[in-house]
Amino acid sequence: MIEDKTPQRTSLSDLGEFGLIKHLTANFEINQPSTLKGIGDDAAVLDFKDKKAVISTDLLIEGVHFDLAYMPLRHLGYKSVVVNLSDIYAMNAKPTQITVSVAVSNRFPLEALEELFDGIALAAKEYNVDVIGGDTTSSQKGLIISITAIGEADEEELVYRNGAKTTDLLVVSGDIGAAYMGLQVLEREKQVFQVNPNNQPDLDAYTYIIERQLRPEARKDIRTLLHALEIKPTSMIDISDGLSSEIMHLCKQSGVGCNLYEDKLPLDPQLISVCEEFNIDSTTVAINGGEDYELLFTISMNDFDKIKGNPNFSIIGHMVQESEGIHLITRADTKIPLKARGWNALEQ
Amino acid sequence: MIEDKTPQRTSLSDLGEFGLIKHLTANFEINQPSTLKGIGDDAAVLDFKDKKAVISTDLLIEGVHFDLAYMPLRHLGYKSVVVNLSDIYAMNAKPTQITVSVAVSNRFPLEALEELFDGIALAAKEYNVDVIGGDTTSSQKGLIISITAIGEADEEELVYRNGAKTTDLLVVSGDIGAAYMGLQVLEREKQVFQVNPNNQPDLDAYTYIIERQLRPEARKDIRTLLHALEIKPTSMIDISDGLSSEIMHLCKQSGVGCNLYEDKLPLDPQLISVCEEFNIDSTTVAINGGEDYELLFTISMNDFDKIKGNPNFSIIGHMVQESEGIHLITRADTKIPLKARGWNALEQ
Repeated sequence: MIEDKTPQRTSLSDLGEFGLIKHLTANFEINQPSTLKGIGDDAAVLDFKDKKAVISTDLLIEGVHFDLAYMPLRHLGYKSVVVNLSDIYAMNAKPTQITVSVAVSNRFPLEALEELFDGIALAAKEYNVDVIGGDTTSSQKGLIISITAIGEADEEELVYRNGAKTTDLLVVSGDIGAAYMGLQVLEREKQVFQVNPNNQPDLDAYTYIIERQLRPEARKDIRTLLHALEIKPTSMIDISDGLSSEIMHLCKQSGVGCNLYEDKLPLDPQLISVCEEFNIDSTTVAINGGEDYELLFTISMNDFDKIKGNPNFSIIGHMVQESEGIHLITRADTKIPLKARGWNALEQ
Repeated sequence: MIEDKTPQRTSLSDLGEFGLIKHLTANFEINQPSTLKGIGDDAAVLDFKDKKAVISTDLLIEGVHFDLAYMPLRHLGYKSVVVNLSDIYAMNAKPTQITVSVAVSNRFPLEALEELFDGIALAAKEYNVDVIGGDTTSSQKGLIISITAIGEADEEELVYRNGAKTTDLLVVSGDIGAAYMGLQVLEREKQVFQVNPNNQPDLDAYTYIIERQLRPEARKDIRTLLHALEIKPTSMIDISDGLSSEIMHLCKQSGVGCNLYEDKLPLDPQLISVCEEFNIDSTTVAINGGEDYELLFTISMNDFDKIKGNPNFSIIGHMVQESEGIHLITRADTKIPLKARGWNALEQ
């Protein structure tokens, strides 16, 4: 028996736009009680009754936000949804619906779009959100994804960026920096591959950090965890641009300063060893890397006992008077002003 | 006195992403009572109380949906908003908020983005919608705009695409085909300009059709008009892809057929004369052109007296059994099956 290894390629123009939408969205179920009408009309219709609706949107561009050389389309679809849902969780709200718009150039066959939408469908299922609308169109260059996420919350549950008070504790979920180093490993492998396409990379030592980059998860558990602990954060944000950038946002909007402690930063052992291999300072990575999609929040000092020792959270600092500024307190107990450099700054 | 005619060009990188968002959105006021939180957090927060929320989204790509050679950025910003609001009106709902995401390549200076956002702000003001969020990022090529519109309606007001009944009348607002011919004129002038850049075009004879293309309006008045006439459409859609395509949507989703009458199509005199000049059949343009952003709807035959003779509306056909199909009845009284060709088909 001879297997046909030629991948199947169906041209998008064979289907037409409406056929394409129908084909790609056939797997999208409606499960949310607030979804009155999903895909198929001029607009979707939602019913939030006495809940508040929360909306967030992101635009992702090939070559800027992702590189298809090492980002499988299924993972890209999944991640595109996750980064938006993360913004909804950062409001302490529950995501309920998303819209998905995609523009592709002709070089993408139908099978590629199917992969992308499989990842989108998987994330929608995993996070129990309905895909209620969107748009597919052609692009002149590359792949463009625009996702809008909608969520709901009771008014008293909502957490904004501007509620942090002096003496509040600064807390982060999970660990940070891994997604950034995962990207460094992938970039290095891409360069090796360009020199020698037959080289088979051994990525076993990097599985965790690569997964943090390629297939991040949004912290849907934090809302439930905090609720169980009877803690309501005073301010919250998700870590997309990097810890230092997000701390600056919380401080600026809340009118406070912050002391961040280097020795409290939660780093995964794999991250530390890869930083050594790359000869990069792990603190710099933890502070300025991004795309961790962990939640960063402040809580009242009175809630300290409820959260201390909880393996899901690390208390990494505390808020101070605005006039005191925003500083990193190093292991050597020196005080360095924190700068918002974010993702791109590290790559220069 | 010597005037400095060099246009001011401020590089986007001077501002940074957060500075850019702040700068561009400084003029966006919050006026809607349902907007609890606008730009500046992980997500916007909306409060619809007992109303239903309606959501629609569109992705617009330079070179696919617009050509900056003849589309001023201010008009583009205005139109980008209008096309989304038109979808909300097509649900018989009232638009209340929009999110705006923009990706631009480095060739755009700040002043260009300001023009674009001026147009967005103008449309937001004209239609009384709040700009509550979005995203600005860089693109590898050209300008990309993604807009999501949110609206509200009482449940009993909402009009879907699937409610048309046999014997219902098919009605369209305003006139159709002009936006398409406006584009033809602009394309012709672009070609003339490329051959002779010193040629000064005289576009006086084309003002209406060019305005329909460059600066369309959404029919925000129709909702009020129909309410005053005590008419609730049985189905409704807006004309973006073209009349024939939209009729097919209504018929397919409602399970009915349609007879469309050529002699009832509302054509502007300027459109007719330009069609003669271009030697294009005006009926073909009216049926297959697009981007008119008029509303197409069906009403019960019992409402005929309420709407007949109203200058805002034209009764252009009636719905029939699904098995009878979808036809154009020509002036010569022949019956031609209608095909959904939409916008692109005409250009081949």
